[in-house]
Amino acid sequence: MEKKNKISIVLASNDLDKTMSALIIANGAKAMGMEAIIFFTFWGITVLRNNTKNSKNKSFLQKLMSIMLPNSSNKLPLSKMNMGGLGAKMMKVLMKKHNVASLQQLIDLAIEQKVRLVVCEMSMSLMGLSKEEIIDGVDYGGVCTYLDETSETCTNLFI
Amino acid sequence: MEKKNKISIVLASNDLDKTMSALIIANGAKAMGMEAIIFFTFWGITVLRNNTKNSKNKSFLQKLMSIMLPNSSNKLPLSKMNMGGLGAKMMKVLMKKHNVASLQQLIDLAIEQKVRLVVCEMSMSLMGLSKEEIIDGVDYGGVCTYLDETSETCTNLFI
Amino acid sequence: MEKKNKISIVLASNDLDKTMSALIIANGAKAMGMEAIIFFTFWGITVLRNNTKNSKNKSFLQKLMSIMLPNSSNKLPLSKMNMGGLGAKMMKVLMKKHNVASLQQLIDLAIEQKVRLVVCEMSMSLMGLSKEEIIDGVDYGGVCTYLDETSETCTNLFI
Repeated sequence: MEKKNKISIVLASNDLDKTMSALIIANGAKAMGMEAIIFFTFWGITVLRNNTKNSKNKSFLQKLMSIMLPNSSNKLPLSKMNMGGLGAKMMKVLMKKHNVASLQQLIDLAIEQKVRLVVCEMSMSLMGLSKEEIIDGVDYGGVCTYLDETSETCTNLFI
Repeated sequence: MEKKNKISIVLASNDLDKTMSALIIANGAKAMGMEAIIFFTFWGITVLRNNTKNSKNKSFLQKLMSIMLPNSSNKLPLSKMNMGGLGAKMMKVLMKKHNVASLQQLIDLAIEQKVRLVVCEMSMSLMGLSKEEIIDGVDYGGVCTYLDETSETCTNLFI
Repeated sequence: MEKKNKISIVLASNDLDKTMSALIIANGAKAMGMEAIIFFTFWGITVLRNNTKNSKNKSFLQKLMSIMLPNSSNKLPLSKMNMGGLGAKMMKVLMKKHNVASLQQLIDLAIEQKVRLVVCEMSMSLMGLSKEEIIDGVDYGGVCTYLDETSETCTNLFI
C-alpha cells in the first residue's frame, strides 16, 4: 500500500471544534480516495456515546464519571468560549447558517464512507463505558492496533 | 519532491504557547532548507487578524463572535495559567528577557522566509471574519488544499 | 534507517491524560521494536520535574512561575474535569483499579526501555527551570534537534 494514501488520527478530545476537525479531515481524505482511520481515546470516546443506552454494572466512580461526561455527540463543549454550553450553541447556529455539516452528519458520513473508527479499550474501562453504550459500526483496539496502522501511514495526527 | 523536506502544521488553537510552537517549528524548518506550510483553522485564524481593519457586513452572531475573539496576535491567551491575561503578560516579559522572539516577530519572520500561510475559509465564515480583516501575504483554502499538501509531506502536525 | 520504525512526539502539555497518551504510545512503540523519542516543550517539561531539588538562582518571575507549576509528575492536572485536582485523583483511583500503569511507572518504563527524552532548552529558560531540577536520564535540545529527528521519522505527533 502506498503510504501517502492513508491518514490516521488520534482523537483524544471531545471538544466540538476538535472533533469536527478530525471528522472533516477524515471524511475529506475518504472523498479524495484515501484511507482514513480515527482512534478515539480518553475524552474522545464520549463522541461515540449512544445516549439511548446505559449500562448497569458500574462502580460508584464509573457511574459518577459516566454522569459527568457528555452523553451524546450533541452535548459536546467548545474548547474555548464554551460559556456553559452557550458558545457551543452559538457555533451550531452559525454552522447551520453557513451550511457546515453538523457533528452528527459528519459522524454519519464517516460511517457511510467507511472511515475506520476504532475505540480505545483502556479508555473505556477508565471512563466506565461498556460497548453497549457506544454507537454501532465501530471497532475496538489498543495502542498496538494504533501503532500497526501508523507504520503504514504517513499523515498521522493527534487532535 | 523528497517528502522529508517538507513540514505541514494545522494550527487550530490561538493559545500564545501553541501558536509560538507552530511558528518556531515552521521557521526552524525553513531556516534548515525545508518547505513549511501552516493551515490556520478554527480559533487559529484569529492569530492572523489585522486589528486595524473591521468588516461591516456581519450578522449579530458574527459580530458577537468577532468582539469576543482576540483582535490581534498581541492579545492571545496562554493555554494554561492565563489568569485573565496576567500569565500571558508574564510570559512575554520572560520571553523578552531570555531573547525569545515575540509572536509578532515570529509571524514577520514566517512571511519573510516564505512559510506558506493558509487560512481555512470555512472557519472564516463561522468566526464571521472576512479577508479584509486578515493580514496580507496569506493564502485561502479548505480541507482539500490541506490534504493535497500532506500527501507529499511526511511531518504533519496538528497543534 | 527505515522511516516506519521510528516515532517522534512533541509533548507541549502537562495534562495527566495527554502525558499518559504520549508515554503509552512511545512505550508501545519501543515494545514493538521501534525507535521512540519525546520532545518536552512548554508546559510539558514540568512532567520531568524532580520535586526533591530546587534551584536558587532565579529571578522573581521565574520563582513565581516555578511555584505555580506542578513540581512533580504526581501533581499533573486533567485536561478536562480536573475540578481543583479532584478529577485527577479520581482518574488515578480508576487507573489503579483497572491495572493501568501510573504516570510514574510509565516514565520509569520509558527510561528503562531507552525512549529518548529530550527537553527543550528555550522552554526551560522561560519556565525558570534549571537542569538540576529535571530528573536524570534526559537529553537537552532545541528546534533543530527536533527537526533533525523528524526528517527520518514518519509518525510525528504533537500532543
